[in-house]
This record gives sequence, structure tokens and C-alpha cells, in this order.
Amino acid sequence: MNIALDMMGGDFAPLETVKGAAAYLTDSPGDIRLTLIGDEAQIKAHLMNHPIPADKFTIVHAAEVIGMHEHPTKALKEKQNSSIAIGFQLLASGKTDAFISAGNTGAMMVGSLFSIKTIEGVIRPTIGGYMPREDGSLGLLVDVGLNADCKPEHLNQFAILGSLYAKYILNFENPKVGLINLGEEEGKGNLLTKATYPLLAANSQINFIGNIEGRDILLPKADVLVCNGYTGNVVLKLAESIYDISKRRQMDDAYFNRLNFEQYGGVPVLGIDKPVIIGHGISHALAFINMIRIAQRMLETDLLGKMKESFVDPS
Amino acid sequence: MNIALDMMGGDFAPLETVKGAAAYLTDSPGDIRLTLIGDEAQIKAHLMNHPIPADKFTIVHAAEVIGMHEHPTKALKEKQNSSIAIGFQLLASGKTDAFISAGNTGAMMVGSLFSIKTIEGVIRPTIGGYMPREDGSLGLLVDVGLNADCKPEHLNQFAILGSLYAKYILNFENPKVGLINLGEEEGKGNLLTKATYPLLAANSQINFIGNIEGRDILLPKADVLVCNGYTGNVVLKLAESIYDISKRRQMDDAYFNRLNFEQYGGVPVLGIDKPVIIGHGISHALAFINMIRIAQRMLETDLLGKMKESFVDPS
Repeated sequence: MNIALDMMGGDFAPLETVKGAAAYLTDSPGDIRLTLIGDEAQIKAHLMNHPIPADKFTIVHAAEVIGMHEHPTKALKEKQNSSIAIGFQLLASGKTDAFISAGNTGAMMVGSLFSIKTIEGVIRPTIGGYMPREDGSLGLLVDVGLNADCKPEHLNQFAILGSLYAKYILNFENPKVGLINLGEEEGKGNLLTKATYPLLAANSQINFIGNIEGRDILLPKADVLVCNGYTGNVVLKLAESIYDISKRRQMDDAYFNRLNFEQYGGVPVLGIDKPVIIGHGISHALAFINMIRIAQRMLETDLLGKMKESFVDPS
Repeated sequence: MNIALDMMGGDFAPLETVKGAAAYLTDSPGDIRLTLIGDEAQIKAHLMNHPIPADKFTIVHAAEVIGMHEHPTKALKEKQNSSIAIGFQLLASGKTDAFISAGNTGAMMVGSLFSIKTIEGVIRPTIGGYMPREDGSLGLLVDVGLNADCKPEHLNQFAILGSLYAKYILNFENPKVGLINLGEEEGKGNLLTKATYPLLAANSQINFIGNIEGRDILLPKADVLVCNGYTGNVVLKLAESIYDISKRRQMDDAYFNRLNFEQYGGVPVLGIDKPVIIGHGISHALAFINMIRIAQRMLETDLLGKMKESFVDPS
């Protein structure tokens, strides 16, 4: 398998992308090659200090970089030789099997939605975020901002996509799906959750356990937490801020340290045809290692094949 | 002023309500009388151990109690001699000036909305929650669940009500109002926040500072945080759970301890004609002390007069 990495993406690129790629390949299991996309001279310079076996990687030179604050659609269109544009060209044409970048999030989203097809039957792709729990496991919150406004059928699909991700990537045998709500009882909620509840309850593809209140989001009560992207985004960023506060207060607690979302790197865009992982701008080597690992696991488990099967129209 | 307290409300009543009332009156400033509503024999028994000067209180006997899990509307209708029903009768008739209870939340809501009038011009009353910040101050999040679905004009009114509360009760000179959103830039958001932003920006009664992301909710960036009740409820309960986690992990940090929402007691229903404060079921004496203090301050500052002025139609 051939996983492409945008070497220029993220605040600490290309040093940290090179370090991450080198560290991953040094003890990588299985038949994996990396395609390193970016400024060839810079990449080679960093490879001197962080060498990678020659048969494990290819460099694809990209003469341009899309900056973190450029307009996504405009930049992608005008900078055809940027690392992100090339990454999507390689992925769309089948020359690589997955694409990872911690660069301009908007450009990565535009590329994902327009260069890569949506899985047939999926109304809207989604992005999830991890919710670390005290028992060491990671729950998945979907959506965390891609879809600010949602309809019940969107949340129902996020539940399916999130469950498959939780099963094959987060290793939950039969992931429990919870609907984030303002009360536990059925019938509580806003218009969206009241209309979504019966859809989730009737969905035989998921293990729906009911409503989950805010107080249970960081507990291992549900493994997949479904909500609209506006609320999910607020929840994710609030959880992130707890880590920042704990550091300012000089805490060093194993659990609160796991609220450092930087270490996880990023999560894939769920619902599109190929593995695309969008990383945090502040990603360091560890984040890139984690993202390459997830991409490899998505390919090894054929997660996208499983997702496609889930949305095949039975008629 | 005469503040009524439901002595039977809350998991630890009437012992903790008596302790709270006694402690408050022992060093209460100003001309305040408490009306203690509940089972007279039980109240008197506890007063033996926690005495209150005789000129500072009146007991009003209530032969019934509405349980924490009773159906609110049904219970209020059928139990006319319950402490909550009597509390609203006294308040509505002007025999008392404020009413505090940590009893059945639903019954308190029904009483607030149906026994007490909504301020003229207010479309929907709201309930806020405190957001403790590291600098020791408390921000106010509105709404935290009373209005699961909101329209832009609701949020605009919550901003006004919340600002007045923040000014007169939380002591902010010119409280900064933030709109909880998934990005800082104007134009970001879901349909609700995009439509609400211009209303807040054009509202000369508030000090609107723009969008506030989840990561800034616990920072002193905005003093009044406006959002729909569904999201606000999730945020409040998530913040509450952080305290629980910190205790399970045997932390004893001054800031994380302030995320113990129990100590604040409760917040008033904003937008109704008289001061009604609904407490947490698990309230102890400290929570009752805090709620009586807020009620007294609401009366001393004539907060409700200020709110009524804000909604006077200028035409």
C-alpha cells in the first residue's frame, strides 16, 4: 500500500513530517510505502538527519504550498503544483491509496469533497473527533463541525459511518451508539434529536443505546456519540481547552494529558470513497505517526469497502 | 424584603435548607425576612439545632411535598398544599418578593411560566448557568436547556437578559456578550448563529464582542455566552463532569474545584416578572446561602425593574 503524506502541511513542517515518516517506517509493520509530497530539497535536507530506507518512500516534488490562511477553493484551483493539489491528483488517479495532510483544513475539505467521490448513498460526509475516556479508550464524536446544520437522516448516516470506524479502527467489537441530548429519556430533546431518535432506534446496522447527556460524553457509556456539527465542534474545543487549563495549572495527570488532542493527529473524512486524513495544524511527529497508522489500518481492514457495503441499496 | 424558601426541596431537605437559612440570617446584611415553607414540625425540629432570630422568619406550613420524579403539571395541579404550589401562590399574590426551591425542577418551571407572568415583550424566558473562569469570575451561559430550539430573536433577548444579570448580580461593569459558534469569523456558523450575529451586532443594549469558540467558554473572553438551550445544556453538563473526573482522580485544584456547580445553588429564571430561583437537587447549605444572596441582590438592585425597562416598546 502506498500512503501519501503532505510534507509541507502543518505549523512544524517539513521537519516534523519527516521525523514522523521516518519514525513510522523504522518500525512499521507490513508492506507500506510512503509518497512524500513537497519541496524536494527541503525534504532531502531533513532526511539527512532522519533517514528512511530508500525502498520505503518516493518523493514527489511540489513547487507550491497552500498557506494556512489562504482561501481554500481559490488556492486549490490556482496552485495546481501545491502539495495538497498534487496529493489529491495522486489519490484520485489511484497512484496512491490514502492521503494525509495537516495543512490548510479548508483546502483539504474542498479536495476531499470535490476530488474524491462521496460513497454512493451517503448524503453528507462527516468528520469526527476523539473523546478520550479514563479507561484508556477513545470514543468518537461525529460530527465536529463539517456539517453545522444537520437533518435526522444525516445523523443516522453519521452513526453508521462512526460505528464502522469505531469497530475497525478503534477496536470496539460492537460499538455502542449514543445520541447527544439534553436528557436521557426518549422524547427529550430539540426538534433534531427527537426526530433522530426513532431513526437510530430502528437502524439495524448500529448498536443504539439511547440518549447521552453532556456529563457522559467523557465516560465510556457510548463509543460513538452522534450530534450536529455545531454542537460537536463546541464540545470538542471545550474538551481541548480543559487540557490547556490543566497545563497552565501545572497538572500532570495521565487522563487530563490524554485531552491533548494534538497527539492524535487527526481523523479521516468519513463518507468519501478513499482514505483522507486531515491533521491539526499544530501536529508534531507523534501526530503524523498516528495518522499514518490510521491510514494503514483503514487500508488493511478495507474500512471503505465495509462502508460502501453499508450503503448499498438493498432493493 | 421577604424571600420565600421551599424547605422541602432538594435531596437533603429540610436539614440543609434550615442550615442554609440559619447561616444566611446569622450574618445577613440588610432588612430581610425569610418565609420558610414546608412541614412545620420538621422545620421546627431542625431549628432547635440551627436557631434563627424569631423576628427574621415566618413558617408557612405545607402539608404536601412534590417528589423529585413526579409529573410537574399534574403534581402542581393536584398538590395545592405542596411547598412549591404554596410558594408560587405567595409570590404571585405579592405576599413574598422572591421564591427559591431546589425541588422538582419541572414543577418549578411550570410554576414560573404559568403562575408568574412573563415580562412584557419577552418572547421566551430562559435559564442560564455559570461558567467559572480561572480569574475567579463567573460567566453566564444562556440558555442551558429551557429552550432546546431557539430562533435568532430569542438569542437576542437572552443576550439582553443575561447582560443585565451579569451587570447587576455578577458585577460586570459592561458585560461582554459572545455568541457561541464554531469559528471566530463573522459569517461562520449554523443557520441560527449566522442569523443571530447581525441582530446582536445591531443591539445597542448589549456589548457584543462577536463569536466565541468552545475553547474560549471557560476563559474570561465573554461574560455572557449566548447559545441555543440544547448546546448550552450539553456544555454545562460536560463542564460539570470535568469536576467529577478531577475528584475521581484525587485532584485538589482551586480552579477545578470551582467547576463543582453544586456550590452555586442555582440561577434564576430570567424573563419572568418576579425572582424565582431553581436550585440543583443536590443542594447543601452553601447552595441555599448563595441562592438567598442572589435573590436579595436581585431585589436590592431592582433587577426586574431594569429588565422591564429594557423591553419597553419605544414606540
